[in-house]
This record gives sequence, structure tokens and C-alpha cells, in this order.
Amino acid sequence: MQTLTALVFDDFETLDLFGPIELFGSLPNEFRIQFASMKGGIIHNHHGVALQTVAVAELAHQTNILLVVGGKGTRPLINDSKFLQTLTTLADNADWVLSVCTGSALLAKAGILDHKRATSNKRAWQWVTEQSDQVDWIKQARWIVDGKFYTSSGVTAGMDMALGFIADRQGRDSAKEVANYTEYRWQQDSRLDDFYNC
Amino acid sequence: MQTLTALVFDDFETLDLFGPIELFGSLPNEFRIQFASMKGGIIHNHHGVALQTVAVAELAHQTNILLVVGGKGTRPLINDSKFLQTLTTLADNADWVLSVCTGSALLAKAGILDHKRATSNKRAWQWVTEQSDQVDWIKQARWIVDGKFYTSSGVTAGMDMALGFIADRQGRDSAKEVANYTEYRWQQDSRLDDFYNC
Repeated sequence: MQTLTALVFDDFETLDLFGPIELFGSLPNEFRIQFASMKGGIIHNHHGVALQTVAVAELAHQTNILLVVGGKGTRPLINDSKFLQTLTTLADNADWVLSVCTGSALLAKAGILDHKRATSNKRAWQWVTEQSDQVDWIKQARWIVDGKFYTSSGVTAGMDMALGFIADRQGRDSAKEVANYTEYRWQQDSRLDDFYNC
Repeated sequence: MQTLTALVFDDFETLDLFGPIELFGSLPNEFRIQFASMKGGIIHNHHGVALQTVAVAELAHQTNILLVVGGKGTRPLINDSKFLQTLTTLADNADWVLSVCTGSALLAKAGILDHKRATSNKRAWQWVTEQSDQVDWIKQARWIVDGKFYTSSGVTAGMDMALGFIADRQGRDSAKEVANYTEYRWQQDSRLDDFYNC
């Protein structure tokens, strides 16, 4: 059983989080999910979502897989040194670190992606890549794998990445079964990026 | 401004809800979202999600669009007459009623889909269709529109349906813009069903 910790914050992007959660959650014998935030309690976003979370310091299970989501809420966090320090500790202690959309801006700003290949949302590309010149940013990609880091492009790209991660760990048949269960047309090729020029 | 009320219950399917919420939420000048449950408070599901909701009786805004999701939690609800009565009242008063996955089983059992064409999840097809023989069930469809009712197939089919609904109301360009923003490869053809035989 692997524990996935989803790190959220106010004004996270709804589907950056719940797309991967649905897919990992479809394999309850393989993945356990916990929702974390800096202080715990209810986290709100701009879609009216109010999600109960546990404080990072009070998590019940050690993190195997860290999921870092994006959204408007990333903008103030790149100047929040306490948040970035917590993110660094969580990432250092995780076996795998996955980011969706502008979540990679947070990892980059914290220095966690130094000398790694990574991608992000195309609509926020300039802002994201300005957070660090130590990252080998790859614009045309659905998702990128470098060592223990999986970074995806915008929003629903995180779902294709999550299935890619499941395929890498549990096998392609397992990922296909999850895609079929959720009636999801999985884009299996991480290099194919329909939104490069959108 | 149209108000979308998402009706949830314990053990709802995560992405049945949050896929459409992301897409409607991407047009904040067009759609306002409120999360409702029978009694209000925190609703839990099998993916560890704990979502704050408002009691149906205490909703701040009148419902234009009712979103009924699916998931394991639908199983006990088909025997809950108070829930089905509330669902009927909500559906009667809404301009549009959208269901994802086994959400259509609830609508069917309540008699709301009598003499309407509708679809549902392929994995739960037999159980869903047993809930009513007064519905014209269409198995091979990504989603079905009949009058004010939009019913979708399983989980991520709800996202294609939500974009279809947005296209029908706000125009296809608006739906495409939402799909591009979320980097979602929208399946625009409601009749194409890759999961008919899965």
C-alpha cells in the first residue's frame, strides 16, 4: 500500500487535484489518499469547493507519493518561504513527486527541480519558467518524467500523467483497467501535446 | 448568471462531480456553483474526499442547473423515499437536469426520466436500467439529451457532456475555449462511445 499525499492550498485548481485522485482512488488496494494543507482545516477555491484537509505536521501516514497541484493559489505561494520549505521537506521524503499544471512552479521556485527536465501549463508558461532558470523546461509535452519527478502540463494532462505513473508502477494493464472503469480516453503518449500552441 | 447546484451524498464518485465543476467553473461570469446535500455539512467518499455542503433546504440561490452525480452512494439512495422526493422537487424546479454515471439511476427510480431517452455507466448498466422500465435507455452513447435532461455515461463522460451543455447554451467557441484552458481533449460527438463493450 502506497500513501499519496495531495498538498492543497486556497484557490487550487479543482481538476488538477480530483482528476488524479479519481484515478489513484480507483485502485484502493494499491493507493491510500490523504489531503494535506499547511495548517489543516477547510481549504476553499474559486469554484466554491470547500475541502477538509489535515495539517502537514499531523498527517497519519508517511508519504510515498506527493501530489502538488496548481491554480491561482500558486501565485502568492512562490513568495511564501515557509510553504516552500515545507514543500521541500515533503518532496525530499517522498519516493515520487508528481505535479499538475502550475504546481511545477512551486517545485521550481523551491529549487526541487534544479537540473531536472519538467513541464507545466501552456497558458502560464512564462510565469512558471521565470520561477527558476535552473530547470530544463520542456514546453511541448503532455507530461515529463525525470527520476522521481513527474510534471504534467495543464489540468487534465494530470490525468494522463497519473495513468502513466500507474502504468510505470503497476503495469499498463492496470492503468488501462482504471481508464476503462472511468470511461476515460487515456492519452498514453507523454510527448503528444495538442495544446502546445493554444 | 446561472446557478448550478451539485447534489452530493456520501460515497459519491469523485470525478463525476469535479470534472463538470471544473468546466462550469471555468466560466465564472456565466455559472455560479453551490454544493448541496440532504442535511448539509461534510460529505465523505471512498477516495478520502471530505466536502463541505449546504443543506438543500438552505441553499442561497435558486437552481437553474441541477447536477446529479453517481458512485457507490447511489445504491442505498434508490430505497430512500425522502431523498427521491427531494430530488424530484429539485429536478422539477430546475431549468436543466444533468446526470453523470449512475446519477441517472436515481432520476429513473424517482420517475423523473419517465418516457425520456437516457444513458448511464456501462459497468453498472443492468442495475441502473432495473430501476425503471419507463425510461428509454440508450446504451451506446457518450451522453444523451432529451428535453431539459442531459444524462451521461460513466465518470469522464460527464466532462464531455458538460462541454456539450456549455456549447448548446453559450456556443461551441465558448466550450472550446474551456477545453483549451483545461487542456482537455473534448470528445464532441455524443454518439461516439468507446466504452460500449468494455
